[in-house]
Amino acid sequence: MILEEFQPIFHPRSIAVIGASNDPTKYGGRYFYAMRERSYQGKLYAVNPNAADIDGEKVYARVQDVPDDIDFAIVAVAAPLVVKAVADCAEKHVRAVQILTAGFSETGSAEGTEWERQMARIARQNGMRIIGPNCFGVYSPESALTLLPGPDFPSEIGPIGVISQSGGFTSFLIRKAMGLGIRFSKVISYGNACDLNEVDFLSYLEADDRTKAVVAYVEGVRDGKRFLDAVKRTSLKKPVCIWKGGLSGLGSRAVASHTASLGGSKQIWDGFFRQTGAIPAVGVEEVLDLIVGFTHIPNFCSKRLSVVGGGGAITVAAADALDPYGISMLEFPPETQQSIRRYLAPSGNSVRNPVDVGTPVFLPFTLKPILEIIARSELVDAVIVEHWVTNFMPSFVQDLADVIPSVRDASGKPFVVSLPGPCSSSDTIDIEETRWKYREWYLSQGVPVFETIQRSAKALGKILQYNEFVQRRKDQQA
Amino acid sequence: MILEEFQPIFHPRSIAVIGASNDPTKYGGRYFYAMRERSYQGKLYAVNPNAADIDGEKVYARVQDVPDDIDFAIVAVAAPLVVKAVADCAEKHVRAVQILTAGFSETGSAEGTEWERQMARIARQNGMRIIGPNCFGVYSPESALTLLPGPDFPSEIGPIGVISQSGGFTSFLIRKAMGLGIRFSKVISYGNACDLNEVDFLSYLEADDRTKAVVAYVEGVRDGKRFLDAVKRTSLKKPVCIWKGGLSGLGSRAVASHTASLGGSKQIWDGFFRQTGAIPAVGVEEVLDLIVGFTHIPNFCSKRLSVVGGGGAITVAAADALDPYGISMLEFPPETQQSIRRYLAPSGNSVRNPVDVGTPVFLPFTLKPILEIIARSELVDAVIVEHWVTNFMPSFVQDLADVIPSVRDASGKPFVVSLPGPCSSSDTIDIEETRWKYREWYLSQGVPVFETIQRSAKALGKILQYNEFVQRRKDQQA
Repeated sequence: MILEEFQPIFHPRSIAVIGASNDPTKYGGRYFYAMRERSYQGKLYAVNPNAADIDGEKVYARVQDVPDDIDFAIVAVAAPLVVKAVADCAEKHVRAVQILTAGFSETGSAEGTEWERQMARIARQNGMRIIGPNCFGVYSPESALTLLPGPDFPSEIGPIGVISQSGGFTSFLIRKAMGLGIRFSKVISYGNACDLNEVDFLSYLEADDRTKAVVAYVEGVRDGKRFLDAVKRTSLKKPVCIWKGGLSGLGSRAVASHTASLGGSKQIWDGFFRQTGAIPAVGVEEVLDLIVGFTHIPNFCSKRLSVVGGGGAITVAAADALDPYGISMLEFPPETQQSIRRYLAPSGNSVRNPVDVGTPVFLPFTLKPILEIIARSELVDAVIVEHWVTNFMPSFVQDLADVIPSVRDASGKPFVVSLPGPCSSSDTIDIEETRWKYREWYLSQGVPVFETIQRSAKALGKILQYNEFVQRRKDQQA
Repeated sequence: MILEEFQPIFHPRSIAVIGASNDPTKYGGRYFYAMRERSYQGKLYAVNPNAADIDGEKVYARVQDVPDDIDFAIVAVAAPLVVKAVADCAEKHVRAVQILTAGFSETGSAEGTEWERQMARIARQNGMRIIGPNCFGVYSPESALTLLPGPDFPSEIGPIGVISQSGGFTSFLIRKAMGLGIRFSKVISYGNACDLNEVDFLSYLEADDRTKAVVAYVEGVRDGKRFLDAVKRTSLKKPVCIWKGGLSGLGSRAVASHTASLGGSKQIWDGFFRQTGAIPAVGVEEVLDLIVGFTHIPNFCSKRLSVVGGGGAITVAAADALDPYGISMLEFPPETQQSIRRYLAPSGNSVRNPVDVGTPVFLPFTLKPILEIIARSELVDAVIVEHWVTNFMPSFVQDLADVIPSVRDASGKPFVVSLPGPCSSSDTIDIEETRWKYREWYLSQGVPVFETIQRSAKALGKILQYNEFVQRRKDQQA
């Protein structure tokens, strides 16, 4: 049912851009050009009383003049003209409207707040739905729908659904995710949420089979009880990672001038996360780490790990980072230790688990047998390898890159790579390029990659905790 | 007094490499070649009973055969031969010995532990000092002394002193710091610390005027009381950042097989940090952020900030990240808001403070006047600017890069840049290269750069807390 309701938003058969313009520095112009560049299969109409044509395309003065039904209208006119545009859409029986324009309740002005109330009323009275105002809107790669300012957003579909009160966050997340091979099912920046809000979009993503994990950036929640119930329900089916912006006193004031939302106290949100099983994450990096993890090892639930690194502090750091999540590294029996030791220098390393091979320069012909021995151990359910890319190894080596995926495949146990950032300046950017090639290779092989051992541990720990939560709930229901 | 004592270590007039070899894959070979490549002004002697010459240089069978006094000997022979080499050094009246070789108490073997005891005894009885065993040793750019494996470590001197129980950490830190323009006064990897330990080196760095801030990676501490006193004393003169490895149960076991140290509980260390004013940091990234901060704005103590960004979530995120450190962003009066607004689009931005300019694409001719207005405000003591480098701006723009340093200079208030990581793949590495150029430019102008707003806030917050601690202690003593 809910999937049907959102058809005009995520799979519109026709779109009108109200405020379309020749000027690509204006939102209406950018949006129209962006959609034309993509392979949108429906019909795209330009509406603007002050333009005769846009790059040769016919422009209609009012949306009512378009000789076709309109599923979805994008409004990108100045704030004082928005209510009229929304009323025009209602008259035309447009099914859903997305309002990019800002300048409403988030400004705190009486006028802007009143305009926002009026557009919400028009929508309610006419059975028309609104996304926004003050938002970047919908990115639905399946329908070649993009949100601003992304004409270049990937056209492939992926497993991650995003709902966000911040347009900046959605567009930065999609861009950062591009280089990590992460793709999205649907992304919605919903801004002030005068009509459709976080609960509506979450319910959609809950029902959407293409969406395997949900990420939410939330500043304020209109109806706490409904949101709590929706997250609870969704969490049992797929992970829900939430970045709650404005948890501090200062942050909560910043939220008010961003989307006119109320923050809610940290204490309330701590309880919320405990009850729902939603996964808290703060900042784009933490969110991306969770996405990478849930994309490649969604069912990760290993508590007995081995960590392999090329320097002593890494293994100590790994142990410290994994311990808070109840993840252990059991000491290998003497036979296993001896088998590993055969491939190492006589000293300067450690083979008890964690395994310190003593040098950051990994060689395929020693790394492979060592990882095979480790992966065969009954004490090990999963392996983290900290792989350094330094100036000792200036180019991508396929033999080395193949080791981890091949041992993973042969053992059936999950492998994770920690691939620390580079050690150089813009003169030696080639080292970073090499590192990105390793990262892309591992990700293309389904091996999640994180930048530090601390971030690896955090992502794995949170995925583990989520899967334990779901299991506990299922046990309780059984 | 203490500076004098360490002369043979940090400024040796002559060095003997015991275990020097033609083979650059062996530590003795690598060390000898590395030192030859550098511009070490003293005399370098090779010792090895099994080599006639190394690349044309004379090799002595025993250190006693060298026809010169030896200040500093580097021992890089197999573990069973180390005690004899140390005894030879004592006979030769060598003043200090650095033992790279591993395979002693950290292995847990009775034999290795006994050897380590013997070499410590020989040193004590002969007034000779030992660094190590199981360490990378000393990097002292002033004397062209390098630690392994760094023939390419910078030869310039900087303000940061490092003491570390892990060689891997020191070498990774120096390499990562290279691209950030960070340079070091002295770096010491001291491994098992059978003689000279963390207290000795800290006392040296306390007295060393070249060292303006100290970083320590510590796994275990031999004499807690002495270490506490040394850190307390040093903290009043210069910041001491400590990464304590092995604070978790699992980490403490990993420490034992790395450097045979005892960990100490988290509770004890929490008290330690409170009492001493030392700054806790976990992981290379956090340590580097503190180094960058203390290098460029050591006296940072601003509690009233302005944050400028190009997207709403950034300002909310900044507020959340700064709040825990007691840093506030006071709302600008209407006049200031109006002055800023003149340079912005009519809507989609926020000027109350934080300031959201509405777009990540900064233009010099609007950014400059906005930052000038903000820096002039009496409500603002320092400014963070979140600067994105995206595919909209594919090359370094000097006009834009000049804005922040020039407004900083004119206002006299500290500026900090948050410069988030890239959004692309190895095909578009040029965006990252551009970002690094901005980073290098800002750092060269004394503007600290951090990768995210969360990391900016954490570094500033910790520097602020340190300066408040020192002030409180001074007030108490007055």
